[in-house]
Amino acid sequence: MSFSRIAIIGLGLQGGSIGLAAQQYLPGVTVTGFDLDPATRARARERGLCHAVAESAEEAVATADLVIFCVPPGAIGKAAAPLRGAIPLECLVSDVGSSKKRISADLAEALPDHVVIPAHPVAGTENSGPDAGFASLFRGRWCIITPPEATDMVKLSQLVAFWEALGANVELMSAAHHDLVLAVTSHLPHLIAYTIVGTASDLEDVTQSEVIKYSAGGFRDFTRIAASDPTMWRDVFLSNKEAVLTMLQRFTEDLTALQRAIRVGDGDTLFEHFTRTRAIRRSIIEEGQDDARPDFGRGDHEAAGTKA
Amino acid sequence: MSFSRIAIIGLGLQGGSIGLAAQQYLPGVTVTGFDLDPATRARARERGLCHAVAESAEEAVATADLVIFCVPPGAIGKAAAPLRGAIPLECLVSDVGSSKKRISADLAEALPDHVVIPAHPVAGTENSGPDAGFASLFRGRWCIITPPEATDMVKLSQLVAFWEALGANVELMSAAHHDLVLAVTSHLPHLIAYTIVGTASDLEDVTQSEVIKYSAGGFRDFTRIAASDPTMWRDVFLSNKEAVLTMLQRFTEDLTALQRAIRVGDGDTLFEHFTRTRAIRRSIIEEGQDDARPDFGRGDHEAAGTKA
Repeated sequence: MSFSRIAIIGLGLQGGSIGLAAQQYLPGVTVTGFDLDPATRARARERGLCHAVAESAEEAVATADLVIFCVPPGAIGKAAAPLRGAIPLECLVSDVGSSKKRISADLAEALPDHVVIPAHPVAGTENSGPDAGFASLFRGRWCIITPPEATDMVKLSQLVAFWEALGANVELMSAAHHDLVLAVTSHLPHLIAYTIVGTASDLEDVTQSEVIKYSAGGFRDFTRIAASDPTMWRDVFLSNKEAVLTMLQRFTEDLTALQRAIRVGDGDTLFEHFTRTRAIRRSIIEEGQDDARPDFGRGDHEAAGTKA
Repeated sequence: MSFSRIAIIGLGLQGGSIGLAAQQYLPGVTVTGFDLDPATRARARERGLCHAVAESAEEAVATADLVIFCVPPGAIGKAAAPLRGAIPLECLVSDVGSSKKRISADLAEALPDHVVIPAHPVAGTENSGPDAGFASLFRGRWCIITPPEATDMVKLSQLVAFWEALGANVELMSAAHHDLVLAVTSHLPHLIAYTIVGTASDLEDVTQSEVIKYSAGGFRDFTRIAASDPTMWRDVFLSNKEAVLTMLQRFTEDLTALQRAIRVGDGDTLFEHFTRTRAIRRSIIEEGQDDARPDFGRGDHEAAGTKA
């Protein structure tokens, strides 16, 4: 490992998982962390998310050769700017944010003297905060790195090696393409899940307790991602506005077409559409990006172990 | 158990699970099954879904005291009508369909001489066919029974006891209210999941392989329910058209409001909305209708066992 002193700014799900993973998979590397919230720092020390949790960001980055910002997208610029003089000049700066064009611009503006190579591990759970992280979060998941044009190739290959050491598969693409891909695979699904959970809790003719009771009919699948960190998701939508609105427009067109098929009783259109979507599920399981057990192995059914 | 000879018409996920559950939890009860598809009948025999699989529906129901139709909603009327003379007059007729107003009407029309009490176990997985069933599918899940007005109260209480013996919690409500509740907790989520999976597979600027690769960002949660049986879901939407379109209208209004908040950069509205939806998730877990492990325990992370 080319890095020997890693600093993590922000000790939530992502930062905490990087800290635990680095300690587990990168022996010899020292991990220092910082979080603005004193309670999070205290909990991070208790859980041992890093070797040391500093009392200031300046102290955390002072001798680092890799700094990773793990704060919400909207807070990165503000977190980075005051560290311009504190981060060593030869140190690589990266992040884990879910949108990349805006974050890349914010980091480049905040740290004009440093090499910045943004990254986004496509891995997470619905939990957030210093209790949420675990060392294997990135194993078998993809980490997308979006190097600026004419970046430092040595540092880029070191960052690739770092994520691979944490168990991730690494892919490189432009920030613009990343934002389009994630708009459809992550941002739009979250927006829709947040919407439907809100819709369901606002009805007059169906009570909230009925919604909860009968959620096993499909609704509960949406509530998991609608329980994700609100601050982070607010920032994701605001920082990837253009791509999200584009994808939302296409989704709305498709929904309107199915709505019309229901209204006019066009069973063939519905059937054809519902058949096509099955193949995607199969591919996701074949690619190891989801659990093949029916219902993800929820509940205690005997079939769970035998259907994979 | 008041029933001693149960006939199951349709041996997919629901029918197969009832057969297995009845054999496991109701010793002394004989289960006979039938399916229109010869391959399904053969597989049902191999898996032992029933004590006996008949070669005709007439033969399956000939001596039954409970007949349960487990075929897609649109096929129930056609499956039931020819059995008017074959089902013993004192036999109770029920079903497991996901919409109830239309199915109740179809069954009442097809079997005017029999006591019909429709039911809907709110339990399922994304798998279908004779390999999908398992005995514990209904354990801890709700089964909604929608008795017609002035029904046979003795037979109703027997049906309640039957579902409780299979491990379900039973709730009674009108068919109309059922259809509204399920429109929001099950039908709308499925429609939206089918839509977004279709949208994602039709883009020009993002390839299908990218969608699959980066699905762990949220998209994969939708693909599970979008892999459900297309025939059944076509029939559900067509047979519960009115309630589905009503719920869809409210969803669209809410989505438009969030879309506007993104467009104008109104972070407060987004944050407020995303915070509200977290509470629903917590309630679903407290009520035992979902798995509290982060990510449903997908993957191999150590935290899985400790966060429930």
